[in-house]
Amino acid sequence: MNFSSKLLENAVNEFARFPGIGHKTALRLVLSLLNQPSESIDKFTGAITQLKQQVCYCKVCRNISDQVICELCSNVKRDQSLICVVEDIRDVMAIENTNQFNGVYHVLGGLISPMNGIGPADLSIEKLIERIKPEETREIILALSATMEGDTTIFYLYKKLKDFAVPISTIARGIAVGGGLEYVDEVTLGRSIITRIPYENSLVK
Amino acid sequence: MNFSSKLLENAVNEFARFPGIGHKTALRLVLSLLNQPSESIDKFTGAITQLKQQVCYCKVCRNISDQVICELCSNVKRDQSLICVVEDIRDVMAIENTNQFNGVYHVLGGLISPMNGIGPADLSIEKLIERIKPEETREIILALSATMEGDTTIFYLYKKLKDFAVPISTIARGIAVGGGLEYVDEVTLGRSIITRIPYENSLVK
Repeated sequence: MNFSSKLLENAVNEFARFPGIGHKTALRLVLSLLNQPSESIDKFTGAITQLKQQVCYCKVCRNISDQVICELCSNVKRDQSLICVVEDIRDVMAIENTNQFNGVYHVLGGLISPMNGIGPADLSIEKLIERIKPEETREIILALSATMEGDTTIFYLYKKLKDFAVPISTIARGIAVGGGLEYVDEVTLGRSIITRIPYENSLVK
Repeated sequence: MNFSSKLLENAVNEFARFPGIGHKTALRLVLSLLNQPSESIDKFTGAITQLKQQVCYCKVCRNISDQVICELCSNVKRDQSLICVVEDIRDVMAIENTNQFNGVYHVLGGLISPMNGIGPADLSIEKLIERIKPEETREIILALSATMEGDTTIFYLYKKLKDFAVPISTIARGIAVGGGLEYVDEVTLGRSIITRIPYENSLVK
């Protein structure tokens, strides 16, 4: 792209560094910013800077929070003995939206991915191990993506955690609710047959 | 969406104000920002603030530029007697990329759109009228979108400009090059028949 202004080019390049934002979208965003009054732009850049400077991660679960210990970890109504391990805070929000889980979370901050140079040391796995107390922890649920990175991380965590004598589970993989059988890929369908469950257990209470 | 942090919510809401960015995408962008070092974020907010504070619009054509008069308007190799009127600078870039135009531009800064409260006074139409000198201007090309707003603006400009005794043209509308006839909508196909041109004229030199 040929830009008529160096300042414009800089701003577009900065936006284009976001994942999923190409140069065309970046230009659209920059031009929409330019049409806004200066105060809006100050509010925008202020919100970002403030977030980065003041953001806090919960000391227990590593969820983003405004407090030292987040609302979920400090909530006595939640089952603190049930720990759901997730990749990032988007997964916390997604699981919270289901209203099917009343335990607490542990946010890893990513998945093991040698391709992207992310190893176990880059994730909050040590924090997770510190948290687990066999007498207090009832179950660890590994709710990670069904991708190669997710499976690698699950395998690593399983090896690290199995000596704690705490049950470790992973969330079910199978056909989506409402999905037709003919559109499901072979791997998913095959696994859903192998990991079939008794009909009575499939009924959601 | 339930956010675990007010700061996070603010930042996501700021991103979600962009056109075409919903709350889910905004959250993805904010989390990717959070994973970056503080210097990257300062560079990002700096580029935006700098653009807004220092941006210059060419005095002649209203294109974004670092100079008072942009590179296109000050280029003696370009035909200054041929003015192509466009909506915004993205259109300038798109037409420049075709390598088919060697005139100059006039950026309106939008289209007349009563629905969005944009009237002729909000566009740089007065500047366009000041620019036109019958003895110096050979042709005015209206290269605006084929939408209701584009058509309204073309009609308005035509009424304003027709007394200047300068030829006014609009860019051709018809089937896309490389497009199959069966996929073209009826209105476009109908217009492309009505506005058909002699075969010899259709050959690009």
